[in-house]
Amino acid sequence: MKPNIPKGTRDFLPEEMAKRTYLFETIKHVFRLYGYLPVETTSIENIDTLMGKYGEEGDRLIFKILNSGDILADLKDKDINTLTGKELSRLISEKALRYDLTVPFARFVAMNRNELTFPFKRYQIQPVWRADRPQKGRYREFYQCDADVIGSTSLLNEVELIKMIDDVFVKLKIPVIIKINHRKLLMAIAENAGILSNFTEVITSIDKIEKNGYSAVKEELISKGFTDIQIFNLFNLFTVGGDSFDEQIAQASLQIPNNNLKLEGIRELELIAEGLKHSRISNTTSFDVKLARGLNYYTGTIIEVKVDSTKCKSQFNNSIAGGGRYDNLTDLFGLPGVSGVGISFGADRIYDVLKELNLFPAGLSVCTQVMFINFGKEREKKCLEWIDALHKAGISAELYPDNVKFKKQMGYADAKKVAFVVFAGDDEVAKNAVKIKNMVSGEENEIKDNQITDYFLK
Amino acid sequence: MKPNIPKGTRDFLPEEMAKRTYLFETIKHVFRLYGYLPVETTSIENIDTLMGKYGEEGDRLIFKILNSGDILADLKDKDINTLTGKELSRLISEKALRYDLTVPFARFVAMNRNELTFPFKRYQIQPVWRADRPQKGRYREFYQCDADVIGSTSLLNEVELIKMIDDVFVKLKIPVIIKINHRKLLMAIAENAGILSNFTEVITSIDKIEKNGYSAVKEELISKGFTDIQIFNLFNLFTVGGDSFDEQIAQASLQIPNNNLKLEGIRELELIAEGLKHSRISNTTSFDVKLARGLNYYTGTIIEVKVDSTKCKSQFNNSIAGGGRYDNLTDLFGLPGVSGVGISFGADRIYDVLKELNLFPAGLSVCTQVMFINFGKEREKKCLEWIDALHKAGISAELYPDNVKFKKQMGYADAKKVAFVVFAGDDEVAKNAVKIKNMVSGEENEIKDNQITDYFLK
Repeated sequence: MKPNIPKGTRDFLPEEMAKRTYLFETIKHVFRLYGYLPVETTSIENIDTLMGKYGEEGDRLIFKILNSGDILADLKDKDINTLTGKELSRLISEKALRYDLTVPFARFVAMNRNELTFPFKRYQIQPVWRADRPQKGRYREFYQCDADVIGSTSLLNEVELIKMIDDVFVKLKIPVIIKINHRKLLMAIAENAGILSNFTEVITSIDKIEKNGYSAVKEELISKGFTDIQIFNLFNLFTVGGDSFDEQIAQASLQIPNNNLKLEGIRELELIAEGLKHSRISNTTSFDVKLARGLNYYTGTIIEVKVDSTKCKSQFNNSIAGGGRYDNLTDLFGLPGVSGVGISFGADRIYDVLKELNLFPAGLSVCTQVMFINFGKEREKKCLEWIDALHKAGISAELYPDNVKFKKQMGYADAKKVAFVVFAGDDEVAKNAVKIKNMVSGEENEIKDNQITDYFLK
Repeated sequence: MKPNIPKGTRDFLPEEMAKRTYLFETIKHVFRLYGYLPVETTSIENIDTLMGKYGEEGDRLIFKILNSGDILADLKDKDINTLTGKELSRLISEKALRYDLTVPFARFVAMNRNELTFPFKRYQIQPVWRADRPQKGRYREFYQCDADVIGSTSLLNEVELIKMIDDVFVKLKIPVIIKINHRKLLMAIAENAGILSNFTEVITSIDKIEKNGYSAVKEELISKGFTDIQIFNLFNLFTVGGDSFDEQIAQASLQIPNNNLKLEGIRELELIAEGLKHSRISNTTSFDVKLARGLNYYTGTIIEVKVDSTKCKSQFNNSIAGGGRYDNLTDLFGLPGVSGVGISFGADRIYDVLKELNLFPAGLSVCTQVMFINFGKEREKKCLEWIDALHKAGISAELYPDNVKFKKQMGYADAKKVAFVVFAGDDEVAKNAVKIKNMVSGEENEIKDNQITDYFLK
């Protein structure tokens, strides 16, 4: 049997693990600095918790788990030949894999409402699974790193989360553009174009403008039954001038016809801009009125982060973080009137950017500090005792397990980037000594064998 | 919709997360001290990688994932009504969830053989999934913490791994008994009883002696077709005297009739006992010739760890760690002749023991160090700047997001165990000062507002 793993999934070797740990720890450090608390949710959710929350495409991409036991029992009394694929699936599958961290979090908040103090600020770093077509940079199992505040409508939360995005990318040394918009402005524009009642459909199309261009999206909208004039009125408001976030908002305010939605959206963006000024943001924040974000559940501010290719040599064009406010997500789980806002870092994409820009710090790999050469059974005993003493002092150490040729043992130490190799051969033992080789400098030292721990503690 | 999660699955709240992190970090620290490197494997494996590796019961308990797309397409040209449940499952499910960490690791080693240096020492801490009947202490999603060495037959590996078990439980302050046996001794006994050809079946039954007692297991063996005399010859050798691990092995050596299997098993156990002496083990090691371990793939030493109830008040009777040597596991994936040995810590069970014995250290929870009271829009700006300075100094700080009553804000700080609360009200602002309240002692201090960071750095 040829060993293999499913398309779109991955294993991580030690070197990648060290880099991933660096990335996760950087993000986690920022989350903690801002008072967010860790939470984890089950990987396996009831299928009804997930279905219908991510739009039609989402439903298709959710990984469903086959019921355990004999599935024929689930099909008893059914005429299998008359069932659609969807109906058959539903009968034999009651559970599914986590698709993102936001919907499970809303479910979590509704379930644990009596044990949480609101506003509740949580972070969560876990894998999610999507049956997407695998391609470069798109995996079927990938990690999301989310921070959300639930139970507060204050825009200070938006300010804080945008500042956290800024902090993370400053620490990672990736220059980014943080794009900001407000769903209510998009709604105002849709209302002006007379197509607010089809808002979800419109959003799905607008979301593709940056990737596919205006004319492709126009065609899509026409095929959905929208008229030329409606589309003109929509697109006409999508270009906003201005050099700074503030100016861009002011321009949009002049440009978009007044209605309640617009006034609310502009007011909120102005307050966020004000807060950001006092938060000393390092990266560029930019207003983009055509920023839509695909997910259904956003109702207020929306945020999307891309690599700033004017400031580095990245070819990476996908968003690497994003987020927004959702007012009604916990409603679906029986907890109405609780607004939430959150951000999500796409760890796997950020990893790819760090790799592309060669931004991983040197020396991340964990390695053994001290390896003892194996000189055979009689000599092993002393080594085990020395190693025990080193471990008690917190120094990583190992004895090569087999008494094989030096060359092989040294090769192992080399490949594993061991810092020091210790020899206790005949010559040394006769003198109650050991020889220590520094594997970086090549320098060798002989010391008394009762001074090994002290030597490495220095 | 009532929010709910599937039976046997769990969410983790911040306080549990802190305790789990303590547990994982303790284990990880020991793994690293001994030179083991981190690895992660995909959660979703091809179903053929897993099926047939864990025995018949294992096959049933593997969570299978429904193929994506229309499953009717997978059933085209099949007469559904003639299929068994198993056949139907197989047609519509090509992937499955990780069931343990050992089989995926064997697959990983075979796949990545050219990039690894052997002997390869890896650790892996990830969830696994089993469709077991949920009950107290048994979950459908739980974490395993594994360390394995692959590519070395040296018994020093066994010694090292047993020492690592000892280290972990010393650090966690759980007294344990580390039971050790050798599959070859069990085989020798089975050979003596004339039932070696049915070894797998015999093992499955022997594994239940401790839980169900001799008479229940005798009945089971009779129902499997074994004779009274065979069972007598089997059970007759299962009681071994002796006070220490050494003596117990010596006793077994006298008791079990000589054959090659026995001689090899005894020789290996003697070498391990010798190594353990020089490794300064703190917990009790004990030889148990009826220790079987359910898994098919073990071929040499087997290890099982239980709480030592003579030394603490634990009621916990399940094994909390275990492991053993497997000579042929990578063969199945096309890499023959590579022996492996490993241990696995059952994180969720160990968690339950730590909780039962009240052994979690105090003050594990991550908390915000400084919270600023929200005095309204005009005051927010200064607070944002002070918080930015605190964050840059590595001090966790947050501004309460809403300008609500003090009582509510202080209640939040209390519930979240914030260490200090900062007030910048009218009186303070007039003096360019802030008031700082120590939430543990209740003590209050007024300081100049340009000294906030310095104050908390001390």
